[in-house]
Amino acid sequence: MGDPAGIGGEITLKAWIRRKDAAVPAFLAIDDPDRLASLAKTMGLDVPVRPVADPAEAMAVFADALPVLPLPLAVPPVPGRPEPANAPMIRASIETAVRLVRAGRAAAVVTNPIHKGVLYQAGFPFPGHTEFLADLAGTGTPPVMMLACPGLRVVPVTIHVSLRDAIAALSTGLIVEMGRITAEGLRRDFGIGRPRLAVAGLNPHAGEGGGMGREEIEIVRPAVDVLLAEGIEAFGPLPPDTMFTPEARAGYDAALCMYHDQALIPLKTIGFDKGVNITLGLPFVRTSPDHGTAFDIAGRGVASESSLLAALATAAEMVVARDKAGAAA
Amino acid sequence: MGDPAGIGGEITLKAWIRRKDAAVPAFLAIDDPDRLASLAKTMGLDVPVRPVADPAEAMAVFADALPVLPLPLAVPPVPGRPEPANAPMIRASIETAVRLVRAGRAAAVVTNPIHKGVLYQAGFPFPGHTEFLADLAGTGTPPVMMLACPGLRVVPVTIHVSLRDAIAALSTGLIVEMGRITAEGLRRDFGIGRPRLAVAGLNPHAGEGGGMGREEIEIVRPAVDVLLAEGIEAFGPLPPDTMFTPEARAGYDAALCMYHDQALIPLKTIGFDKGVNITLGLPFVRTSPDHGTAFDIAGRGVASESSLLAALATAAEMVVARDKAGAAA
Repeated sequence: MGDPAGIGGEITLKAWIRRKDAAVPAFLAIDDPDRLASLAKTMGLDVPVRPVADPAEAMAVFADALPVLPLPLAVPPVPGRPEPANAPMIRASIETAVRLVRAGRAAAVVTNPIHKGVLYQAGFPFPGHTEFLADLAGTGTPPVMMLACPGLRVVPVTIHVSLRDAIAALSTGLIVEMGRITAEGLRRDFGIGRPRLAVAGLNPHAGEGGGMGREEIEIVRPAVDVLLAEGIEAFGPLPPDTMFTPEARAGYDAALCMYHDQALIPLKTIGFDKGVNITLGLPFVRTSPDHGTAFDIAGRGVASESSLLAALATAAEMVVARDKAGAAA
Repeated sequence: MGDPAGIGGEITLKAWIRRKDAAVPAFLAIDDPDRLASLAKTMGLDVPVRPVADPAEAMAVFADALPVLPLPLAVPPVPGRPEPANAPMIRASIETAVRLVRAGRAAAVVTNPIHKGVLYQAGFPFPGHTEFLADLAGTGTPPVMMLACPGLRVVPVTIHVSLRDAIAALSTGLIVEMGRITAEGLRRDFGIGRPRLAVAGLNPHAGEGGGMGREEIEIVRPAVDVLLAEGIEAFGPLPPDTMFTPEARAGYDAALCMYHDQALIPLKTIGFDKGVNITLGLPFVRTSPDHGTAFDIAGRGVASESSLLAALATAAEMVVARDKAGAAA
């Protein structure tokens, strides 16, 4: 569901309309059927909404209607106005999805965007989806956020902290840990036998030999050396500005980036609305669109379903790759 | 000329071969005619090299031969091996270009890449071309580096310093000064009557209201306010990751960026090999390709002349716009 005051509902309806596209797998919404039916009517979308009892029933109806596992909301949502009373249902939607996938009754979790503010007010103690899912999964290792669009996968080593704090948080150990999880994820979930990791520098021109910053020498290169010693095909530190050209991108399977915007600027610049957010290191497949709740345009019917469609397609591809990896193991 | 051990010579020869393209203006190389003739022969390029005495003669021969104002080198250059003995000629090439343009005998200066190391050894006291040109011009204001490719212009407020130092160097005054020079440059050199400046934040999500860094609140927003008060159409601070999508780019004429890679990552990601480096705030038009000396591929004939061609074309456009602005004033 995501935040029902955001664009999650309308992009879910639009994604169902595109159900005959080859890349779109069958899916089940965990949401309030009444609010989805009402949203479809308001937006003039021809989407029959069908409450279902479980995923098996969902698969049977998917061709003819949008299957919805009912999760009644406390308050009818108003587009653009997040409502703390509905926060427990936002959380329950995620928990239910994880329960179904862990029980083997669903193949993957795809999450619509949530808004942290309203969840914090309701006592949600996690910085975001990714950390909540890692907690539900009980993995003990940090979750890794990978963002992907056609032609580029990026992993920011530091995420939602100020740029100043991101620099302070950088360490060889952190880069190595993220590199390991990324390489393992590319092998297991993307079927890439020998993943190539491009490791970015922090500073302009990757520090130019220490003249413009020493983090490359003291932190990043030692991490590349450790990864190489573990048999992971890592290379870098690379000058950040030239590593995202089409020619450079052809040389690696994922870029390990030192801070949020070093990863997100090229991803969003190239990917337009085809970006997918993927959590690596979980015992199940999880993706999401790479945009937010977009409260400013919610309910107007203009939100694009492209990123959600890409998230659904990517999840399906990852499930296939993971099954193959499992069968081979 | 640029550094004669770099790719400057071969891309100059290749650019002359493209002289009939509508966008390529007539140009004069300030270089060693013998080394260019020998390079053309080595690379199998059919480029007659013609020593000329001045720009007027150059224009007369340009259709039939590459005109070269002779600047004999101390030592025959070896591709990929910068030679300190030639450093005075690298410097003299720039000085001659500036003298010709200041005397009204050439319309613009286009510089091939130089390598700082070899110039430093020869006592060159400037961080790069841009600062040397500002010194030759004696403007007293800081030179502003703008990079442009089709669909995007960016101005990094801080440039060749570590990311840590870039954050420390940010100030409202610096952003305002860069914004003013950028707006004036867009008006005078690009014929944009009312330039729109998109001002980037420093932190992820532009700090998200102060939760991920306070520079947006304390430094960037006050700069936007000053620029607005001066009648410059500035807006921001914007979240850095979403401001370079095609849709976002359509909303501004230049992006004012807080650090090198925030500007250069999107530019090089979008621009491939069509980027141009432009110095604003000089009394003459100056552009250059946005790549370096590329010692690793020099002399192999594989270097692309695209960026130099774009630099030549952009310089010509700027000259026309500046003449119009001068005539109107």
